[in-house]
Amino acid sequence: MAVYTQVGAEDAAAFLARYDVGELRAIKGIAEGIENSNYLIETTEKKFFLTLYENRVDPADLPFFHDLLDHLKASGCLVPAFIADRKGKWLQQLCGRPACLIEFLTGVSVSHPTPEQAHAVGKSLGEMHIALTGFEGQRPNDLGISQWRSLAEKCTEQSLNSISEGLAARTYEELEFLEDSWPQHLPRSVIHADLFPDNVLMVGETLTGLIDFYFACTDIRAFDLAVTHAAWSFSEDGSEYLPQIGTAIIRGYDESHGIDADARDALSILFRGACIRFLLTRCYDWINTPADAMVTRKDPLAFLRRLDFYADPANIAQTTGQTH
Amino acid sequence: MAVYTQVGAEDAAAFLARYDVGELRAIKGIAEGIENSNYLIETTEKKFFLTLYENRVDPADLPFFHDLLDHLKASGCLVPAFIADRKGKWLQQLCGRPACLIEFLTGVSVSHPTPEQAHAVGKSLGEMHIALTGFEGQRPNDLGISQWRSLAEKCTEQSLNSISEGLAARTYEELEFLEDSWPQHLPRSVIHADLFPDNVLMVGETLTGLIDFYFACTDIRAFDLAVTHAAWSFSEDGSEYLPQIGTAIIRGYDESHGIDADARDALSILFRGACIRFLLTRCYDWINTPADAMVTRKDPLAFLRRLDFYADPANIAQTTGQTH
Repeated sequence: MAVYTQVGAEDAAAFLARYDVGELRAIKGIAEGIENSNYLIETTEKKFFLTLYENRVDPADLPFFHDLLDHLKASGCLVPAFIADRKGKWLQQLCGRPACLIEFLTGVSVSHPTPEQAHAVGKSLGEMHIALTGFEGQRPNDLGISQWRSLAEKCTEQSLNSISEGLAARTYEELEFLEDSWPQHLPRSVIHADLFPDNVLMVGETLTGLIDFYFACTDIRAFDLAVTHAAWSFSEDGSEYLPQIGTAIIRGYDESHGIDADARDALSILFRGACIRFLLTRCYDWINTPADAMVTRKDPLAFLRRLDFYADPANIAQTTGQTH
Repeated sequence: MAVYTQVGAEDAAAFLARYDVGELRAIKGIAEGIENSNYLIETTEKKFFLTLYENRVDPADLPFFHDLLDHLKASGCLVPAFIADRKGKWLQQLCGRPACLIEFLTGVSVSHPTPEQAHAVGKSLGEMHIALTGFEGQRPNDLGISQWRSLAEKCTEQSLNSISEGLAARTYEELEFLEDSWPQHLPRSVIHADLFPDNVLMVGETLTGLIDFYFACTDIRAFDLAVTHAAWSFSEDGSEYLPQIGTAIIRGYDESHGIDADARDALSILFRGACIRFLLTRCYDWINTPADAMVTRKDPLAFLRRLDFYADPANIAQTTGQTH
């Protein structure tokens, strides 16, 4: 939620001069991004993002992200392209940081999706997965099921219980269940892995962009649908399931990608895995971020409440759309 | 350096619907502004800033800022206008905060001005002062000479000396000098009072905007020239005077507004006052901002070094342009 590296106008102008994108007319630091410095740049021709990679993104992963977006873009998906300079170079150094110029996509992130918007999200996610069938890049999911137990241990039982009484026991019980029942046999590919409303752009009911691929990784494809479902289909605090939204996401994905019987059967487990993944990372951030820091800490319990919902078999039939 | 109040896309769209400015297409929180929340908004027609006023700007001052920019804009000065809605209302409530839609001006803030740019700044400052001759609004300078002593006391001698050995004694000695010699007789009007490079927009050598009027107040008019000179004419840390820049600012102002003998004689004192004003507010912020806060603390000593320069009579003849 901040700009960590200051880029002066002269630096930005010299940077842009390597590209065939017009001359600098405005540059504003943007208050978003996962520990990167992001600038919105306007030239005489177009708008762009300038991203300087700080600590959280490993520069060694940037070629994977570049190739991924390049592939998706070429397949017609609405994703932001990395822009190459006149020599074809898309990864630069600026003010001592790895830096990239990235396409600006029009649209806003909705806070209260309509069923039409949710349908568009499910459909686009499915289209993205179809497009990724031919993509050969790989990146391990360092926030996947194999990491959840050590993430819980890093949080410590005491700290988990300080967030909510009994949370440690509940977490380990759930981890045991997930480790025993995880559908390892389901098809894997690169997935977005973080398709929250923040990471989708809309103009009215039309989806205009899928953004922020910095958690993209190789994992069970249907897990991406489960993450998206958990991210979109609840009130923000997780206390209320929004059936029209959840149904629309499943239906949209089914229309574009299809959901076979294996994946549909496994969804109830994948949903619970999605909840544990965000519960644990939010607990970790909660424990390790001072309460007075100027970073918004996200409530871990919003995903405990979602977990409660998905763990109740009575909720699953409607959720997985098995009546369709 | 942050967004304090989160404005959702639906909130922003409903807000914009009051105005005749087209439909929302993008909204991004901007990492700048003095404790306000600033969003860059793009509609189907134009770009705007959306500012939500947090604690530092007193909402009671907003009509003054509005009238000031309205007057300057009508006089042909390059300042951002407050935009009125269909009913003529320019001050709204949004997400529990006073909020205004403000014109977006193209241009970038330079870090290393050229003499041509500095000349344009001096000239525009003078034009702004001429335009303000007919402006009747008033706002006391709560960071003016009458406040400096109490500001120093709030810092405490001990804390001042912890920033730099002997700083307290030096400060009080300077305050005594300034209180004795301050040119109270010089013409007063509304002044910008904070015309740092951050607050000027340029496209190439052409000035495209004067922005951030939230320190504007009634004070000695030539004090504004002194502040601008001190802000622009040094390396950032204050260790090096840039004679071509300083001379160009004075020359630009003289060409548009004129500098009479009284003002020219008083400049050496006004320069020192400008240094004390920023030295003291930076000391105050330094002392009251934790070192690990995500706000950049500005080095107070950058203005002690400037003060050292201006306090040396050998430097003054060239500085005030008396040879021209």
